[in-house]
Amino acid sequence: MNSGKATIHDISKALNIDSSTVSRALNNSPRVSSKTKAKILTKAAELGYQRNSLASNLRTNKTNTIGVIVPRISRSFFSSVISGIEETAYKNGYNVIICQSLEDVNREKKIMDNLLSNRVDGVLISISMQTSSYEHLKPFRNHGAPIVFYDRPCNFEGCTSVSIDDFEASFKATEHLISNGCKNIVHFGGPQNIALYKNRKKGYLAALEKYGLEINEIFCFENELSENDGVIMAKEILKMKNVDGIYAANDTSAISALQYLKSKDVKIPEDIAIVGFNNDPISSVIEPSLTTINQPDFEMGRMATNALIDQIKDTSLSVRPIVLKSELIVRSSSKVMP
Amino acid sequence: MNSGKATIHDISKALNIDSSTVSRALNNSPRVSSKTKAKILTKAAELGYQRNSLASNLRTNKTNTIGVIVPRISRSFFSSVISGIEETAYKNGYNVIICQSLEDVNREKKIMDNLLSNRVDGVLISISMQTSSYEHLKPFRNHGAPIVFYDRPCNFEGCTSVSIDDFEASFKATEHLISNGCKNIVHFGGPQNIALYKNRKKGYLAALEKYGLEINEIFCFENELSENDGVIMAKEILKMKNVDGIYAANDTSAISALQYLKSKDVKIPEDIAIVGFNNDPISSVIEPSLTTINQPDFEMGRMATNALIDQIKDTSLSVRPIVLKSELIVRSSSKVMP
Repeated sequence: MNSGKATIHDISKALNIDSSTVSRALNNSPRVSSKTKAKILTKAAELGYQRNSLASNLRTNKTNTIGVIVPRISRSFFSSVISGIEETAYKNGYNVIICQSLEDVNREKKIMDNLLSNRVDGVLISISMQTSSYEHLKPFRNHGAPIVFYDRPCNFEGCTSVSIDDFEASFKATEHLISNGCKNIVHFGGPQNIALYKNRKKGYLAALEKYGLEINEIFCFENELSENDGVIMAKEILKMKNVDGIYAANDTSAISALQYLKSKDVKIPEDIAIVGFNNDPISSVIEPSLTTINQPDFEMGRMATNALIDQIKDTSLSVRPIVLKSELIVRSSSKVMP
Repeated sequence: MNSGKATIHDISKALNIDSSTVSRALNNSPRVSSKTKAKILTKAAELGYQRNSLASNLRTNKTNTIGVIVPRISRSFFSSVISGIEETAYKNGYNVIICQSLEDVNREKKIMDNLLSNRVDGVLISISMQTSSYEHLKPFRNHGAPIVFYDRPCNFEGCTSVSIDDFEASFKATEHLISNGCKNIVHFGGPQNIALYKNRKKGYLAALEKYGLEINEIFCFENELSENDGVIMAKEILKMKNVDGIYAANDTSAISALQYLKSKDVKIPEDIAIVGFNNDPISSVIEPSLTTINQPDFEMGRMATNALIDQIKDTSLSVRPIVLKSELIVRSSSKVMP
């Protein structure tokens, strides 16, 4: 009935009881009968009366809820990270709220607003591919609540990031293609405003450089690495004629490219060898099975959540970036069978 | 960071009284003793509780947020439903909060408490496999907020369900195996307290009956249809020796059974034909590709969200169950190649 700014005076007026009695009742004074007290408290709740002292009492008013912002839950990598988050949060008595940005920075902004008004105790976020500034994270930080980045590390107000070493993983993946004889290796890269994709491209370039292969800008694609993007890039590759290797920064685009190339009678790996990233379940089932980078996804969720909970409990705590190990899984898409 | 908006959940926690009782007391229900009521009202005022009054103040106190409870986001069927939910909610100006029950009724209860205290405007829920009573949904309904069931229909206080006709889909799937010559068809079934799994089993039994095949209780498995359950059931089937068909109530268990049987040199479909349910992306990629039931998952999310939003806007609205069409997709796992 109003915006909740009811005062003692409003309660007094509504019940025709004098305001000092109302005040005593609200302070649970023994001088007010329990019948009158109940009447006053009922009216106070009804009118939305709010004690001022509560606003300053930060500690007791935790919601025990963690907000998770994820680009896309349908990606199996992210759903595994979330499993690690859920298990760790649940064990520690926290609820988890999951919100998808769908790689859209405007949605991400709305979600941050919503998580702030839902008073979650902290946020785990993997930023969207469109996110290049962090203004929308500031109001949350201004409330003293911690933010931890997972998978896609960010340099923002000393917040912790939990990720793998993307440079190193990409270097290994590209080196593997080179050691199998590939000389013209294309890179399916993500948006370069995201540190993760920048580092994956850097790792690819560093491997080419180390082995004296020419760096060719038209070999470096940049897009959102969707299924459809994979097909578009595969078509481009067929026009180029000399490509003999693909290193894709995710399995989604690698798999759709593989399927398209197969349908055009390209032999994989004989004509074009392919390496992906993420070890999606489908990568081991598809024929030929896909060589890829496996990340400790569940573990990443677990460690990010532990770091966040530590900081919720002690907001002065600063936690250093956590870097997890990844591994190259060699399968048929990059190995010529003897 | 908390602005002092204590919730029913906070009161419930502080007093160790369950949140539905707190809700009743705040609504001045005669079902709560006046002693308990006074205790709750005192604590409410102390914590600065403010009536959300979804019931009494519908227009002004909306959060424009929809809560979604999903058994498991890693199942591709559910993540597609959620895509439909997100798109529809976003178009209509609603935020979406996703929570996983992980098929655990205790988590589901905690989530409902949490969504109530976050004052979401409505809830879309696919109940957990363990859920057999709906007590935990009542506090939310008592606030006059709508609940819509998707995928797993429930008979609860006239709430809308959006699903496919599971009986009919199962009948078609089983009939297909019979018409391909299968005589000893096993059913991988889910928990029979869930109407969806009950109807899938009924459809299977009805098809056997129609074609005069013997109904054998040991052919009817019942479990949570996980990957691991699929392997366990495949092992059981090999002991039975005479099984020539499997109709599984989800692709997850069908696929892991298929992989296990293949590893034991069982020829699929020649020795054992297999039909799954859900059309997971992996079902078209695996060899042999899996015959399955395709559900309009995105559409299911869209329709459930539209129904929910209609009811948020007009709580007096009653919406009839919505039943969507499904289709059998025949692939190699059930068809002997000519």
